[in-house]
Amino acid sequence: MDAFLQAAIDEARQGLAEGGIPIGSVIVHQGRIIGRGHNRRVQQGSAILHGEMDAFENAGRQPASVYRESVLYTTLSPCPMCTGAILLYGIPKVIVGENQTFMGDEALLRERGVQVEVLQDADCIAMMRGFIRDKPELWNEDIGV
Amino acid sequence: MDAFLQAAIDEARQGLAEGGIPIGSVIVHQGRIIGRGHNRRVQQGSAILHGEMDAFENAGRQPASVYRESVLYTTLSPCPMCTGAILLYGIPKVIVGENQTFMGDEALLRERGVQVEVLQDADCIAMMRGFIRDKPELWNEDIGV
Repeated sequence: MDAFLQAAIDEARQGLAEGGIPIGSVIVHQGRIIGRGHNRRVQQGSAILHGEMDAFENAGRQPASVYRESVLYTTLSPCPMCTGAILLYGIPKVIVGENQTFMGDEALLRERGVQVEVLQDADCIAMMRGFIRDKPELWNEDIGV
Repeated sequence: MDAFLQAAIDEARQGLAEGGIPIGSVIVHQGRIIGRGHNRRVQQGSAILHGEMDAFENAGRQPASVYRESVLYTTLSPCPMCTGAILLYGIPKVIVGENQTFMGDEALLRERGVQVEVLQDADCIAMMRGFIRDKPELWNEDIGV
């Protein structure tokens, strides 16, 4: 298991333990995690703190040069909002835990030149399957359905 | 002057008075503002609280049905991140103060069926021109340049 994907999964599990939506993310610059986060919809009543957005926020203000040498890891295929944040900051590479329970805007990322790798990780899939089964209304709210 | 664009401009001016980036936004549902905000990069050290994102956050958790009947006003053409948030939540209409100082992802919004109206408002243009002239490095950081 990739240590950075594991860190994103740890974030997702922490979110689940808090009663939240189990999606986690880390941003890695030159082999070091500079931001980590998980979805905060339930915990903070937030409409914008998806896992990836929380990782961007926790990384703090960074110069463009840092983003352009960073890799973003996320347990789930990035939704349009998180895709937009990746494009805004010019993140060149995104590692996705899985896209079987939700297909985000990967096509747009690739179209704009972002390298996207999808791992179809069994733990990520099982975690989201269980969550969607248990709390379908919460999940639908999170993806605007 | 449209009262809702004026409310977005008021938010932008408040941000400027706080030493921040002068971009404001409001989200209007059935003729009533449900969320308002302005860029918080300087004030909160935030990488994700653009004006539109702050308006989404301040609107709180809303069901999809509310977003789909809402209009988003913003003083400036929405960047890729804010464009993605608009797409995630299915906002059908966006009123843009101006796109002369910055051209966001309006083409993607239109491609995905969002109605976009650009007003080329003189106050919005003057406010951003002055800000970009005075603080070019801060502006570049905000748009990932």
